[in-house]
Amino acid sequence: MSGPTVAIAPSTPEWAAEAVRLGGGTPTSEPGEAEALIWLQPGEPARLGELLGAHRGLRWVQLPFAGVEAFAAAGVLSADRSWTCAKGCYAEPVAEHALALSLAGLRLLPERVTARSWGQPAGTSLYDSSVVILGGGGITAELLRLLQAFRVRATVVRRRRDPVPGAARTVPVSDLHRVLPGALVVYLALALTPSTAGIIGADELSLMDPRAWLVNVARGGHVDTEALVSALGSGAIAGAALDVTDPEPLPDGHPLWEAPNCIITPHTADTWDMIRPRLARRIEDNVARFATGAPLLGLVDPAEGY
Amino acid sequence: MSGPTVAIAPSTPEWAAEAVRLGGGTPTSEPGEAEALIWLQPGEPARLGELLGAHRGLRWVQLPFAGVEAFAAAGVLSADRSWTCAKGCYAEPVAEHALALSLAGLRLLPERVTARSWGQPAGTSLYDSSVVILGGGGITAELLRLLQAFRVRATVVRRRRDPVPGAARTVPVSDLHRVLPGALVVYLALALTPSTAGIIGADELSLMDPRAWLVNVARGGHVDTEALVSALGSGAIAGAALDVTDPEPLPDGHPLWEAPNCIITPHTADTWDMIRPRLARRIEDNVARFATGAPLLGLVDPAEGY
Repeated sequence: MSGPTVAIAPSTPEWAAEAVRLGGGTPTSEPGEAEALIWLQPGEPARLGELLGAHRGLRWVQLPFAGVEAFAAAGVLSADRSWTCAKGCYAEPVAEHALALSLAGLRLLPERVTARSWGQPAGTSLYDSSVVILGGGGITAELLRLLQAFRVRATVVRRRRDPVPGAARTVPVSDLHRVLPGALVVYLALALTPSTAGIIGADELSLMDPRAWLVNVARGGHVDTEALVSALGSGAIAGAALDVTDPEPLPDGHPLWEAPNCIITPHTADTWDMIRPRLARRIEDNVARFATGAPLLGLVDPAEGY
Repeated sequence: MSGPTVAIAPSTPEWAAEAVRLGGGTPTSEPGEAEALIWLQPGEPARLGELLGAHRGLRWVQLPFAGVEAFAAAGVLSADRSWTCAKGCYAEPVAEHALALSLAGLRLLPERVTARSWGQPAGTSLYDSSVVILGGGGITAELLRLLQAFRVRATVVRRRRDPVPGAARTVPVSDLHRVLPGALVVYLALALTPSTAGIIGADELSLMDPRAWLVNVARGGHVDTEALVSALGSGAIAGAALDVTDPEPLPDGHPLWEAPNCIITPHTADTWDMIRPRLARRIEDNVARFATGAPLLGLVDPAEGY
């Protein structure tokens, strides 16, 4: 029995070819010979669109990252193929980064790092606190696991109604305003879609506790940046820790750079060193599933765009 | 049946009196009436010595913090009484602080916090890494629990030979040089005694991995500060995160303030807000144990000084 032939493009690195082989497939750099495509370029959706237009035989496309909004916006996610992305795959390092950012904020590290003199004892512990997490996907599942060690009571806000395991409660987005006031940390770990863009604006920031930190490891577009700058300046919230910004990259001279209670990391919750072994494992798994007709991991709904 | 009469000094706050009552004792501000003493002043060992000299009937003394070296050095820890300290009691916030500091270092937050421009992706994940923890007490037990979520392989270095639960291995201090090279983080969570002072010096720092962070939540005296300044400057280690320093408080103008890869927090791993409810619970527990003759928690060996 021979497994599927899987193209890897736009380049065909050996680690990805090896992952296809480990999954029981035959790697190729020629899309014309293949039934499936591993697309390793996070940007350039138009280039992928062209390739797919020329090769109708590609029945499944694996995208390299968790977020696929650039491909959705470019209209590449056609319903006549199966689409998978790497969602869930990088949950560990991203959840770790979210935890690191929240602990850094609560322990006042921005102030400590810039201090040149011994300070007063201060800081807040995560133990036995309440937090809100927006999004009910893989990052949230992993973050809940990490937070559990601190006996954190987590409220997950999500579109779907089924409860997220490990959360103290799961509520719909319509309850967001009701749950924000009680949270010591508000984590953003949801997909960016037209309905979640700007989900944290002036109203939401004003409902947060003045001791609370906003941690964004999702997409910059979830937050109204101007409203955030003013909430940071007025003390409406204690601080913000952002791995993603809007605009991104954040331009030099932007007021967020000067906010002393803002931590900015350059979209680096998961670095390539953290990603590569996990993506290889996902490719291997999905090639094996594709070969046997089992359900693929990280399926994207072309209509929903995530 | 009436419980023990327990003095609370040098002052007698209501929260402590309530803790004594909850443990079944009768609180008093008069040591002359009491069998036991809750001493709430972390410093001023001489003052405690005077009080004890005047009141020989005090058979048990509860000290407020985990470290008792100031009392040991002042010769107050006499063998004719039972001594307990708050060791184990503040393990949670201190272990949390240690984790926060290590994640902040590995995720390059000192550099990110001071940046005024978007940077390159970089950082190291704790998942599946190896760490070394010096000390086998309560902070280590809690830190091991937190690190477990990241599948960290921890080597605990301690004086006693019995293995620490949750550690991948427990080794004696004579193995320190052998285990340092493999660690991504070296955590100091041991008691300061004459034999552990300066346990991390130039030799130990030179054995650490250039990617490794040193995290000290124990006592400043464990580290040779001059050797640390030079290891930070030469890149022998990636960085240091210190909640304690030698000298402490770290004086203005000290070279550690200028090291870009050094995070200093002012001995604030556990703040009073974090400590008070935990100390109250310990007092309650120990008063109840004292009343029934059960073994006290946090016993200090006057001969060992911890």
